[in-house]
Amino acid sequence: MAYELHYWPTIQGRGEFVRLALEEAGAEYRDVARDPEASGGGEAALMRDLSRLSPVHPPFAPPFLVDGDLVIGQTSAILLHLGRRHGLSPADEPGELWTHQIQLTIADAVVEAHDTHHPISVNLYYEDQKEAALKRAEDFRTSRMPKFLDWLERVLEGNPQGSHHIVGGGVTYADLSAFQLVEGLRYAFPKATERALEKTPRLAALCAAVADRPRIAAYLKSPRRIAFNEDGIFRRYEELDG
Amino acid sequence: MAYELHYWPTIQGRGEFVRLALEEAGAEYRDVARDPEASGGGEAALMRDLSRLSPVHPPFAPPFLVDGDLVIGQTSAILLHLGRRHGLSPADEPGELWTHQIQLTIADAVVEAHDTHHPISVNLYYEDQKEAALKRAEDFRTSRMPKFLDWLERVLEGNPQGSHHIVGGGVTYADLSAFQLVEGLRYAFPKATERALEKTPRLAALCAAVADRPRIAAYLKSPRRIAFNEDGIFRRYEELDG
Repeated sequence: MAYELHYWPTIQGRGEFVRLALEEAGAEYRDVARDPEASGGGEAALMRDLSRLSPVHPPFAPPFLVDGDLVIGQTSAILLHLGRRHGLSPADEPGELWTHQIQLTIADAVVEAHDTHHPISVNLYYEDQKEAALKRAEDFRTSRMPKFLDWLERVLEGNPQGSHHIVGGGVTYADLSAFQLVEGLRYAFPKATERALEKTPRLAALCAAVADRPRIAAYLKSPRRIAFNEDGIFRRYEELDG
Repeated sequence: MAYELHYWPTIQGRGEFVRLALEEAGAEYRDVARDPEASGGGEAALMRDLSRLSPVHPPFAPPFLVDGDLVIGQTSAILLHLGRRHGLSPADEPGELWTHQIQLTIADAVVEAHDTHHPISVNLYYEDQKEAALKRAEDFRTSRMPKFLDWLERVLEGNPQGSHHIVGGGVTYADLSAFQLVEGLRYAFPKATERALEKTPRLAALCAAVADRPRIAAYLKSPRRIAFNEDGIFRRYEELDG
């Protein structure tokens, strides 16, 4: 049975980490909210499904994934599940935990990237928190972003099975999520990110390799891949880069 | 063999979620950085161990847990592991995932609580970002905090096995983490939190019950429990409450 992914229909956002895993797995899935409203899609349906689909295990927010009877919220929990189902994480417990630990660290970086344009409140427009955003973005570019990317580089460098993958000798959702993080940073902070990536050549090479994987390459060219835009997590505001 | 917990020695912080699980499990553990420097404790040792203990699987930041050969970073990954080892999460996969999903949502709330006093940068003092902090704290108190607590209340209400626990009919790390979140909020935002808890009686009752569990009660009275203070995640600045 096909998976159902429920996420905002007009942005990559956190849902994109799930989409990439589903695409790499070659899994059949329906990106529900992107369907026409007449077929149960749209944002109103998304919010309705959020509380209706699983009254006993209600997700706190999109994305959530429906896999038969299971309704799973939280991007990292969804990836834990998909990693098991599709061999996108090692089958042994330490390997699975390590992959998950990397995902959780990437998720932390994603929150911080988001908060560069919304440091005060998700309920306010960017324009209404721009002063704080300028300061937070500067701190992110100069301190936090390099710290996260350097850590990923160090992990790649230390992988006993080589630097072609973050975990072990094959693709895991950690590779896909690192790719998506870097893609997002490149969109939002093109100057700062290219500068940071000069110091993390293994990570830059990994991202290029992920983009070249046949299923990912096909996905990126397809209409299923939503373009980055200023409603998502990674937003390009020239004044926040530097 | 005893666990080793590595975390900042003077705050509850994220390490506290791990401490509570270890205490409830009755597990033997060493809170390494709290040992005297002569015995390998202190902050300098903590940062040294962060990169030295596991060059292949380096944690990004404290807390990290050493369990024999395993070195695990990220609070939620540590709890996933301890949950399995000590029956602090259901043994079945859907139950384990659900418990983890709750933990990840609580972890999101913890980040947002932290950012009320540090909305711009962890590298600046509170006093240097106080203006932004006042705004972010107001948004957190009036919008985000109630949203998180209401969700936990709804989950408790919907638990088919009753509202005494968040997951199933027994204690899990989700109960312990919810307790710690509420304790922290009560410390940081006493007025706003009591107001929110009036609308979440099941959650308030759960927190009281967790505090009464024999091992947790003994821990809370012991010197192992560090008092809340203004270096931690939950800080009391009167101007941020209301």
